[in-house]
Amino acid sequence: MSSAKPIREADARGPLVGVLGGGQLGRMLALAGVPLGARFLFIDPNEASPAGETGEHFALDYAAPEALELLAGCDVVTYEFENVPVEAARAIADRTTLHPSLHALATAQDRWLEKSCFRELSIPTAPFFAVDSPGHLKDALELTGFPAVLKTRRLGYDGKGQHVLRSEADVTAAVAEIGTTGLLLEGFVPFERELSLIGARAADGSTAFYPLVENHHANGILRLTLAPAPDVSPERQRSAEEHLSALLTHLDYVGVLALELFQVGGRLLANEMAPRVHNSGHFTIEGAITSQFEQHVRAVLGLPLGSPALTGPSAMLNCIGTMPDPHAVLAVPDAHLHDYGKALRPGRKVGHVTVRAPDGLTLAERLATLRPLIW
Amino acid sequence: MSSAKPIREADARGPLVGVLGGGQLGRMLALAGVPLGARFLFIDPNEASPAGETGEHFALDYAAPEALELLAGCDVVTYEFENVPVEAARAIADRTTLHPSLHALATAQDRWLEKSCFRELSIPTAPFFAVDSPGHLKDALELTGFPAVLKTRRLGYDGKGQHVLRSEADVTAAVAEIGTTGLLLEGFVPFERELSLIGARAADGSTAFYPLVENHHANGILRLTLAPAPDVSPERQRSAEEHLSALLTHLDYVGVLALELFQVGGRLLANEMAPRVHNSGHFTIEGAITSQFEQHVRAVLGLPLGSPALTGPSAMLNCIGTMPDPHAVLAVPDAHLHDYGKALRPGRKVGHVTVRAPDGLTLAERLATLRPLIW
Repeated sequence: MSSAKPIREADARGPLVGVLGGGQLGRMLALAGVPLGARFLFIDPNEASPAGETGEHFALDYAAPEALELLAGCDVVTYEFENVPVEAARAIADRTTLHPSLHALATAQDRWLEKSCFRELSIPTAPFFAVDSPGHLKDALELTGFPAVLKTRRLGYDGKGQHVLRSEADVTAAVAEIGTTGLLLEGFVPFERELSLIGARAADGSTAFYPLVENHHANGILRLTLAPAPDVSPERQRSAEEHLSALLTHLDYVGVLALELFQVGGRLLANEMAPRVHNSGHFTIEGAITSQFEQHVRAVLGLPLGSPALTGPSAMLNCIGTMPDPHAVLAVPDAHLHDYGKALRPGRKVGHVTVRAPDGLTLAERLATLRPLIW
Repeated sequence: MSSAKPIREADARGPLVGVLGGGQLGRMLALAGVPLGARFLFIDPNEASPAGETGEHFALDYAAPEALELLAGCDVVTYEFENVPVEAARAIADRTTLHPSLHALATAQDRWLEKSCFRELSIPTAPFFAVDSPGHLKDALELTGFPAVLKTRRLGYDGKGQHVLRSEADVTAAVAEIGTTGLLLEGFVPFERELSLIGARAADGSTAFYPLVENHHANGILRLTLAPAPDVSPERQRSAEEHLSALLTHLDYVGVLALELFQVGGRLLANEMAPRVHNSGHFTIEGAITSQFEQHVRAVLGLPLGSPALTGPSAMLNCIGTMPDPHAVLAVPDAHLHDYGKALRPGRKVGHVTVRAPDGLTLAERLATLRPLIW
């Protein structure tokens, strides 16, 4: 943008979308939304914003009065980061349209509310118990037995704030770190694999769901997504869609919602939801007719949803801490590089690579070439 | 971008690409290049720049000293507009890397040089003659006969500066408007259809060519591209690729080059070339494995070219002067809207829609739905 350009140029026609958070998700939302004629304004307290290449970034706290004024001038406000303070979001919703709903934001911020919401909607989960005192913890552990997982109710992501308890010693260590209040104890789920379902709901209530994908983590961070997930029966897909559909309706949701699921035996247990575009949906940029980013922008702008059908099998590899040599990656047929432009730091998601193939065998071959370039 | 952000943030790692011209082609170059980690700086004298959403736009003349200073600080400079003054481009090439070459820029700016280049490389064209006096015009008309086409050597686009001569009265009218110097007279080609070939050459000399596409114009402005062009034999595709390949090598070209061709009987005649991404290649954003925009960015950054294979049949419809209702367009399966964010003015290219389909019949059906929404 030209340095002195006002936010609304005389020449500009498109809607202005405000985004809370200016990370790579915001960047990819704008890359998908600019072709639809939208313009983007990002609020993120960090000075360095990957989204700043694709819109106007203001380095402000989410709750700053200047941020509220800027966002109130937007046609619609959304978020790429679910830990926005609910009070700040409420003030925005009082002044302009906020999607997804405050209800969704508040629910997703608190593991207890989230899991209770799942239970209310008959969405299967691991057993879970609120912990707000040493007595609660003792009682809950009697019900779950070891192993169990103790989590903070709020502000956990990428495995942070989570402790697997296999013994009394683990309990002591976990309590020393995170205390005995504002927690959730969950039964340990010996899951076979992790899947996720990404879906969207438009303002008119119509919905669209991508096929279930299979996710592989290391140290709590997503490394690889396979799309579609192998060996998913139509019944399992339908069952997962019914759960996500129930959530979308219950939360009066507009936008993209991701649901992480554990597969245990023949069952899918809901682990958590993300009220935003999701890392496990990055493959959709090349791997689906409509990307999750475009889908979210379409929804919040009141436009019809696009087709979530896949263009074929694909895989997404996260670049953690470092970026691979682009020459080597781009020499792989149908490999697509996404560099978030972030400073390289250990454990940080700094980019991803999506690779497509005409069939699963060719995909496996291309993955075998790409993996050593990336990890 | 945040208002006070310097062009190179401390946090930024990616190459800075300078672009002469800040129209929709620049905008789409950046939308394709930002995911590769590149950042974009646009020089365009117009205050309102469609590319300003996706990079830093400076409203400066191409030849302004401030523009040269900014561009000299870029890792590579390219152009999305071939009428950049050659002297300004030369000054840039003296200070940093310029792609495509000065030779390509100078040749494409002048229809006489361009056609002479085609002749030198044995690329078939309509008969053509330089006109720099009334005598030249008379002599040339004797060779071509009526009808013939009188064109300015420089600064013509979208049919501007072109006169079809069918009678002496047409000659008088044309001369009254464009004179008798700095012109080119061409034999009229009763072509069956117009095709274009888009290809790219990387810094290492490797090349990639998209399939030939079929273009339909109205009032000299492209309206519709069908990809691939129907009824193209492998021999015809190969012959067109050989011509473009000869041009790429001759011009020591790095980037995307488009060649417009007339099909006359069994032959293809070269009409003109564009040393940049081209309107008839917009379909590649969704219709090819690698878009022409990403292909150009890969080339100028010294990265390997991507696959130019199509994802299936597709069509691109230009939005001229007005934009269609996005609700209606996006309700068509696999339709993709590209709004350039420009002020709406008659005759101006303000956006395009690409539609894909699994087969030609479904494509025709979707086109039948889209056409009345757009024209």
